[in-house]
Amino acid sequence: MKTEIAYEIDSPTGKFAKTTIERREVGPTEVYFEIKYAGICHSDIHTARNEWKGTSYPCTPGHEIAGIVTEIGSQVTKFKVGDRVGVGCLVDSCGKCENCRAGTEQFCSGPGGTIWTYNSMGRDGKITRGGYSTGITVEQDFVCHIPDAITLAQAAPIMCAGITTYAPLKRWGAGPGKEVAVVGLGGLGHMGVQIAAALGATTHVISRTRSKEADARRFGAVKLHPTSEDGVWESLEGKFDLVLSTLSDGVELDQLVKCLKLGGVLVIVGLPEHPTQTHLSLIVGRQRIVTGSQIGGIGQTQEVLDFCAEKGIAPQIEIIGGADIDEAYDKVVNSQVRYRYVIDTATFK
Amino acid sequence: MKTEIAYEIDSPTGKFAKTTIERREVGPTEVYFEIKYAGICHSDIHTARNEWKGTSYPCTPGHEIAGIVTEIGSQVTKFKVGDRVGVGCLVDSCGKCENCRAGTEQFCSGPGGTIWTYNSMGRDGKITRGGYSTGITVEQDFVCHIPDAITLAQAAPIMCAGITTYAPLKRWGAGPGKEVAVVGLGGLGHMGVQIAAALGATTHVISRTRSKEADARRFGAVKLHPTSEDGVWESLEGKFDLVLSTLSDGVELDQLVKCLKLGGVLVIVGLPEHPTQTHLSLIVGRQRIVTGSQIGGIGQTQEVLDFCAEKGIAPQIEIIGGADIDEAYDKVVNSQVRYRYVIDTATFK
Repeated sequence: MKTEIAYEIDSPTGKFAKTTIERREVGPTEVYFEIKYAGICHSDIHTARNEWKGTSYPCTPGHEIAGIVTEIGSQVTKFKVGDRVGVGCLVDSCGKCENCRAGTEQFCSGPGGTIWTYNSMGRDGKITRGGYSTGITVEQDFVCHIPDAITLAQAAPIMCAGITTYAPLKRWGAGPGKEVAVVGLGGLGHMGVQIAAALGATTHVISRTRSKEADARRFGAVKLHPTSEDGVWESLEGKFDLVLSTLSDGVELDQLVKCLKLGGVLVIVGLPEHPTQTHLSLIVGRQRIVTGSQIGGIGQTQEVLDFCAEKGIAPQIEIIGGADIDEAYDKVVNSQVRYRYVIDTATFK
Repeated sequence: MKTEIAYEIDSPTGKFAKTTIERREVGPTEVYFEIKYAGICHSDIHTARNEWKGTSYPCTPGHEIAGIVTEIGSQVTKFKVGDRVGVGCLVDSCGKCENCRAGTEQFCSGPGGTIWTYNSMGRDGKITRGGYSTGITVEQDFVCHIPDAITLAQAAPIMCAGITTYAPLKRWGAGPGKEVAVVGLGGLGHMGVQIAAALGATTHVISRTRSKEADARRFGAVKLHPTSEDGVWESLEGKFDLVLSTLSDGVELDQLVKCLKLGGVLVIVGLPEHPTQTHLSLIVGRQRIVTGSQIGGIGQTQEVLDFCAEKGIAPQIEIIGGADIDEAYDKVVNSQVRYRYVIDTATFK
């Protein structure tokens, strides 16, 4: 066993504390890497605070992980010591079911299903621990190469925020000649805008206020539409081929649907907790499409890393130490982060 | 001008009465045909009773029309006298906008938009009158050929109920290896079941009770699932690739979404009036798709006529006279029709 320094939380209302956790020695097809950076995703907060229920404590979150390989198993072919690597939301799956074979391992329907990076039952019967730690052992098929053009700190958020927005933008045809709107300019949204613009779409931001107007343009949007102002929703009716909502709650479904062209697509990547009211006639009458998207498979995660490197896209991050996690969580919840916190594990020592 | 015998209604709470209406003489590219049969669609009732607002009275509904050509314009190339023809929901459009060019004339975005078969502003500045009449003059591009294998009376409902269910089943891939459910076994639903089965899909019916169980099988369904019985909704979770809801109201959205497989599609072809509550997480987490469909273009309407002829599919109809329209409307509203009323215009004389 390897002993790592990690941060963990032991109750929904607890604080993060430094501790040690164990990682298994590498198996034949596994790699071990020193974690250098771990992003803070809103999902980490939902889990740490048991807002989605089912959290096992103590809990070490973190599924936006980047580091350097220091050890590989005897049969590892994809990585060598010294490689810059990343791990996202999943660390294992059956590899045999139709979803795994289709490259959508996040929907593994095999025994036990997808094994998530944290708060998931591992094959060894232990609850998985995430990236707020100094190292991790992972099956090579669930590890991605980080291109040289991206720093490790900036690569971390691509492992979740990047793939979560890239997958639906690709799936639903964001590209030249398409009018795309990203709703919410936070950790996910600011990646979505950059990716949509880099894919060639005419990209807009739909946000409550104008406070992030300059940022929206800097990320590649042609315009920010502040919906708290009079007449803005009306001005957007029938305008977009694709709307990507990154809001985790407070989705104004009917308003967003009305923004779609004939046959346009609304993709929701947040996981709204509360029920929403909708007039189905808005969907039916114009053959609009409402759908969702849930992260992405490993192959496509490598694809988005390569895409970001090629296009010069990166998350805008603020690097923090392990002792700052609690405060960072509060700021994420209050939308005060610009735009992603990334924990530097060098501060753990 | 040609004078026709027709049935019209003069207020939302009125009764249908026999009258005469005028049709224009054929223009160079128009055909005139004697209407033999006109189906009664639930939309006729919504319009006659002003439930969708905007009804101009007196109103002659009817957009499931079949008859025999008796006169053609000098430049008509597609039809000759004696041809068996049908007209559905639309009688004209601009022909130049991107939707018309794409064969979706029902979404014409040109000046004036699509001209509907009744209760629509015609190019001559008069409100259009529908199929509850003895003849009609229509631009040839909005007329379909009825194959010999289909009776005129049975062809009529294909012009709306047929195309409305065929278009989304084709669009969303109903076919061999796919599990398809049709929700509601009425005028639309009984066509949807036959079409889905003929396309090769394993077809199910979702209905409140077992009352139409034998009919469902006769139309080609492998099973009817009566949702008023305990445990039925639960048994359907994650089962279908495609669910086609034909209900005009009372859509249990969350339950239907839960019936979808990963990435499965719910298509709604009714136009529910009332708002619906939904938990978006049901859509997002499994990348399900909720969409709608609105009749179909002229080319595809011809396609469904040919498909029904080839596959031996026809609506199950009950032929009534002009004097029976009011009673028929009440029976449609009370779900007592099995499965489509068709008015025989020979009873108008």
